[in-house]
Amino acid sequence: MIVKEQPSALKLFLVMQGSVVPQILGKILVFTVLAIVVMALDRHVVALPHVSLTALSVFGIALSLFLGFRNNAAYDRWWEGRRIWGGIVSDTRNLARNCEIFIAEKEDRQDILGSAVAFAHAVRGDLHDTDVTGDIAIWIGDDEAARLGAQKGGAEAALRIIAGKVRALHESDRLSGFGQLAFSETVSALGRHQTGCERLATTPLPFVYSLLVRRTTYLYCVLLPFALVETTGPFVPIFVAVVAYVFFGLQAVTNELEHPFRQGQNGLPLRALCRTIEISVAQALDRPAPPPLSPRNGILG
Amino acid sequence: MIVKEQPSALKLFLVMQGSVVPQILGKILVFTVLAIVVMALDRHVVALPHVSLTALSVFGIALSLFLGFRNNAAYDRWWEGRRIWGGIVSDTRNLARNCEIFIAEKEDRQDILGSAVAFAHAVRGDLHDTDVTGDIAIWIGDDEAARLGAQKGGAEAALRIIAGKVRALHESDRLSGFGQLAFSETVSALGRHQTGCERLATTPLPFVYSLLVRRTTYLYCVLLPFALVETTGPFVPIFVAVVAYVFFGLQAVTNELEHPFRQGQNGLPLRALCRTIEISVAQALDRPAPPPLSPRNGILG
Amino acid sequence: MIVKEQPSALKLFLVMQGSVVPQILGKILVFTVLAIVVMALDRHVVALPHVSLTALSVFGIALSLFLGFRNNAAYDRWWEGRRIWGGIVSDTRNLARNCEIFIAEKEDRQDILGSAVAFAHAVRGDLHDTDVTGDIAIWIGDDEAARLGAQKGGAEAALRIIAGKVRALHESDRLSGFGQLAFSETVSALGRHQTGCERLATTPLPFVYSLLVRRTTYLYCVLLPFALVETTGPFVPIFVAVVAYVFFGLQAVTNELEHPFRQGQNGLPLRALCRTIEISVAQALDRPAPPPLSPRNGILG
Amino acid sequence: MIVKEQPSALKLFLVMQGSVVPQILGKILVFTVLAIVVMALDRHVVALPHVSLTALSVFGIALSLFLGFRNNAAYDRWWEGRRIWGGIVSDTRNLARNCEIFIAEKEDRQDILGSAVAFAHAVRGDLHDTDVTGDIAIWIGDDEAARLGAQKGGAEAALRIIAGKVRALHESDRLSGFGQLAFSETVSALGRHQTGCERLATTPLPFVYSLLVRRTTYLYCVLLPFALVETTGPFVPIFVAVVAYVFFGLQAVTNELEHPFRQGQNGLPLRALCRTIEISVAQALDRPAPPPLSPRNGILG
Amino acid sequence: MIVKEQPSALKLFLVMQGSVVPQILGKILVFTVLAIVVMALDRHVVALPHVSLTALSVFGIALSLFLGFRNNAAYDRWWEGRRIWGGIVSDTRNLARNCEIFIAEKEDRQDILGSAVAFAHAVRGDLHDTDVTGDIAIWIGDDEAARLGAQKGGAEAALRIIAGKVRALHESDRLSGFGQLAFSETVSALGRHQTGCERLATTPLPFVYSLLVRRTTYLYCVLLPFALVETTGPFVPIFVAVVAYVFFGLQAVTNELEHPFRQGQNGLPLRALCRTIEISVAQALDRPAPPPLSPRNGILG
Repeated sequence: MIVKEQPSALKLFLVMQGSVVPQILGKILVFTVLAIVVMALDRHVVALPHVSLTALSVFGIALSLFLGFRNNAAYDRWWEGRRIWGGIVSDTRNLARNCEIFIAEKEDRQDILGSAVAFAHAVRGDLHDTDVTGDIAIWIGDDEAARLGAQKGGAEAALRIIAGKVRALHESDRLSGFGQLAFSETVSALGRHQTGCERLATTPLPFVYSLLVRRTTYLYCVLLPFALVETTGPFVPIFVAVVAYVFFGLQAVTNELEHPFRQGQNGLPLRALCRTIEISVAQALDRPAPPPLSPRNGILG
Repeated sequence: MIVKEQPSALKLFLVMQGSVVPQILGKILVFTVLAIVVMALDRHVVALPHVSLTALSVFGIALSLFLGFRNNAAYDRWWEGRRIWGGIVSDTRNLARNCEIFIAEKEDRQDILGSAVAFAHAVRGDLHDTDVTGDIAIWIGDDEAARLGAQKGGAEAALRIIAGKVRALHESDRLSGFGQLAFSETVSALGRHQTGCERLATTPLPFVYSLLVRRTTYLYCVLLPFALVETTGPFVPIFVAVVAYVFFGLQAVTNELEHPFRQGQNGLPLRALCRTIEISVAQALDRPAPPPLSPRNGILG
Repeated sequence: MIVKEQPSALKLFLVMQGSVVPQILGKILVFTVLAIVVMALDRHVVALPHVSLTALSVFGIALSLFLGFRNNAAYDRWWEGRRIWGGIVSDTRNLARNCEIFIAEKEDRQDILGSAVAFAHAVRGDLHDTDVTGDIAIWIGDDEAARLGAQKGGAEAALRIIAGKVRALHESDRLSGFGQLAFSETVSALGRHQTGCERLATTPLPFVYSLLVRRTTYLYCVLLPFALVETTGPFVPIFVAVVAYVFFGLQAVTNELEHPFRQGQNGLPLRALCRTIEISVAQALDRPAPPPLSPRNGILG
Repeated sequence: MIVKEQPSALKLFLVMQGSVVPQILGKILVFTVLAIVVMALDRHVVALPHVSLTALSVFGIALSLFLGFRNNAAYDRWWEGRRIWGGIVSDTRNLARNCEIFIAEKEDRQDILGSAVAFAHAVRGDLHDTDVTGDIAIWIGDDEAARLGAQKGGAEAALRIIAGKVRALHESDRLSGFGQLAFSETVSALGRHQTGCERLATTPLPFVYSLLVRRTTYLYCVLLPFALVETTGPFVPIFVAVVAYVFFGLQAVTNELEHPFRQGQNGLPLRALCRTIEISVAQALDRPAPPPLSPRNGILG
Repeated sequence: MIVKEQPSALKLFLVMQGSVVPQILGKILVFTVLAIVVMALDRHVVALPHVSLTALSVFGIALSLFLGFRNNAAYDRWWEGRRIWGGIVSDTRNLARNCEIFIAEKEDRQDILGSAVAFAHAVRGDLHDTDVTGDIAIWIGDDEAARLGAQKGGAEAALRIIAGKVRALHESDRLSGFGQLAFSETVSALGRHQTGCERLATTPLPFVYSLLVRRTTYLYCVLLPFALVETTGPFVPIFVAVVAYVFFGLQAVTNELEHPFRQGQNGLPLRALCRTIEISVAQALDRPAPPPLSPRNGILG
């Protein structure tokens, strides 16, 4: 995720980082060249058929609506992903506070909170398709970490460990029934967040939208020079380039935000959020806390 | 549900799977032919009356708004369906964790979790109008499965079995009052999800919208050639075809997403979600877990 | 509520059931005649002043926005109404399951669940302004039914009966404190749903919107012929008729959906939902369940 | 709040009650006169510079978007206000039912429910900036009422009385710990509603929106005659009047709905809602209930 | 946050406070001068190429959609920030009421509620990046305040103090298990609000939107004079100035609302909200309450 401040007006058109221009430059160029060719043919070779701009504008309104819809849906997914991870942070802290409220012995808290950190890393590991055994090991020991890392579904296993520990504490009279109930609720909340991540990661926006929107965008950009050639003169290629930038650019943004958990410039900073959790848990256990992650080149990972 | 990656620009116009073109090809052709006829008549036979494009564009804006509204509403239903099933997955896992937290004996957990799997399959059976007795039998035995499968409302019956089991465990002092309370809440949550599915499945979007939108789309496409004939020249049929593709295409998408639980290319993958539940429950019971379902030809069932 | 499938393209323009055309036919005719008169006067008698179509289209965009807003707000109310009734269905079932979880004796469950059915009917009776004594009598006896039916606020009284019964069961040691707490929550949820129905039924959309939107629609349709007469030729009356159909049609739909609990083609099927509740409660009490209601002429009441 | 039915088409343009016309008549007249002056000057004195209508329509789209945004935001506030008060009604009834479920002695219930009515009136008193001592006195006695009325924050004080009473009942063994927990949750819900009212009442929409929207509207209406004068002929003043009616009218509506708790035609009927609460509490206490408030001249206060 | 009433029509264009004009005056001037230069060159020196207004209007619609999206997203963030702080106010009061319900001794309440005030200030301190040790000291003593102020994450530490106090009260039998459970829930709610603030503060809107929207706005304003020069005559500079005001103005507003916790004219009044909390807590502890903060020059800090 990019966390730098907005560039000033002067730098605005030079900024490439965070910009979608590099991704869509090919398309912009293709349509600009097409526009130049259409203009040249029409002026110097043979009068091409023209499209009415008003007609195209009806089409443009429809296209704007589709792009707008897809953009809203993708942004909602991105923000929901962030809210879910905010929930993981929040409910891990609630778990730590419930330990403080219901469990007298500090050692008893350690297993529960270590597994909670492992849970967060395991969710991240699943989403980023990466091995998190190393990150987990310092919290729950190498053996346990290897066991969690070995199986698909390490996040669920981590919550199961917490659940088992809660029962054991209750059976040995170190946790009351009230505490058991409170832990049951917090662990359920963590499980809900994990399933929410799974939902976003495995359910893309309906495929058909992409086809509809992308095909329409291409058709629009192909027809555009024929509509502009009559009235816009030498501005035709500039205009086509700008429109291609706007429409393909929005599409590229949408494609990224649609998958909030993919690694990339606009992906959510899951590593940094896991670190936030580690810091909170370390403080709750009176351990030295690791430093928060800082952005590298303006990007928080 | 289609889970493949987006096609590259070159393949974009050749992809037929997941496209709505096959469904609406007839309509596109009819209106394209109409456009050709209107254009031919107007040029070579008799000057037909023309419609002002600006006038039609007012109409087009209204149509875009209607289609946009219906599309939003349909997508919201589809996504709500997915969220509800995410809730079923999540709360079945919570049930498993509550077993871990509150119930000491492994055998006691088995009945509850087996019925939870039966619940998920029964909800799917109701929505897909299919017999799930076979899927249930391995979890709750043939007799019980036949009994659940035989009655309409097997999902409710499955939850009733869980509820009865919870009471029995409490009466024999193997489950505390706190555990009873926690199970009561989780079972209520599962019931809420089932009623949510029922709501989406039995309450379509108001019928009158379909009439209004579809009639308006037809009228618009009939009037369009009379508006374009003056200014758009030989592009008229292409233009009409594209507009028909956009408007009828969006309508076809909307019709599918409106019913998220129907089987089809854009239907939700209920079988795969039931399998996810089976895997989680198997892991909670220390049984060998079945493999997750994979998409066939890019479609997850 | 209309539950039939969408008509094919051929039947689309003949369907009258579920269509708003009968309601707004008068208005469509008036404006069509006006358009013919304006056209005739302008051509054959005296040149009337013309309005610029572009000017009118600005106005048309504003009108579309208003209609779109009102339509969204009305649909949200309709869908919220459906969600609330889904909540009534769901929480009655939760009540039945809580009976199964917390109450050992079947007879003790009967009073609670009978009153829950009475609650649903009483809410429906209030919303439809109809007498439900007959429907209630078979569940809670004639005397009690007459007493509930006699007073305004029968729904609240039904919940009060449940609450009293819960206390009595606890006092006679047939229900634990945990059970009391669970029932308290479920009864509160039912109460929230009832208050939600009351809110929708007693709070219409702000009156001023209707005035603003309706006045604007009339003005727009009056000015339209003066704008079209120059450029649209013999299509003027057809065009005006279509625009009147679209704008007045959307308005009529909105008026119906704004009041989701009114009886009518687009009203919610409260009788069918009460029947769903009766079936669930009958199954929970091991009684023979009545059949679900089926649509009559495609309408579910 | 206006609760009358919609006027028929004939009466539509005569209705003044509930209309915003009286408020904005001055502005409509000013701009109509301006339009007449511009038209007269342009025709008979000197050719004024003209503005392109297409250019103005770009501007008009932006303006529609701003107005649409502000309208949505204001309506959401209004409806949130209504939902919050629905919550107050609902949770007061829940409080009454919790009394029925957990408290055996009728006298013990009286103090709690009387304070709940006082709470609702006190919230209303704060929002309407009015003295509610008289309304409260019949429920909690003159002394207590004077004490609550005297301090800012009477609503909080009323909830504090309930909380204190709950503790006292528990300490004298007339309320179980479960009951205490249930009351704690219901009182917290009432508190949340009160804070929600406070939030809406003290946080207006960002001031800058008003400036931006209002300035833009004025500029638009000033430029409009220069754009219309060329193409719209004698309709110019009518057109400007209609546009001013639509844009300033929507603005006036928005200003009212933005403050849902202000007294006025579109303000929420807080008195009537308090009465609804009084009726429910009276029924719960087996007292004679006061009659519901009826609208006066179609307005419910 | 600006809390003054809306200015009358006469003052509307003179108001500078709360207006974005000062921020964007430079840009407005640049584009106005550009428009004058383009107009002068075109008329008196050399015919410049013209852009079709219709073509630009397609572009304008897309731009309106982007700006509209960004504005909605930013306003939603601002309002969510306000709702979260409403939650902090509300749950601190709930904490005070839970003290009243579950804790008999007044002294025992003091530590909990003092730390709750410290929590609110610490959240504010984090968001405003300011030292709140002084504000906290009067509630929890200088030593404790210095300790909380010294560490990053003072808010979490304050909640941890509450949690520890709750356990201590329970261990010394001054708080029941029910009370423990109720406090656990309220403290969790406070923690959720704090994490919500963190989420808004650390996760800006995706950077790429800013680039896309800002670049598009600049391009639009550069092309605008070439489109207007043909048809709008001497109004060109006025028109360009107004459009620049509208588009850059909305952008400036959006930039401010996107960061609801930054100090500034449209930032949320965190100091005033903390004071509200102090007043409620003081009343709950029977201490003299400080006066609420009043706006200075119409701005509430």
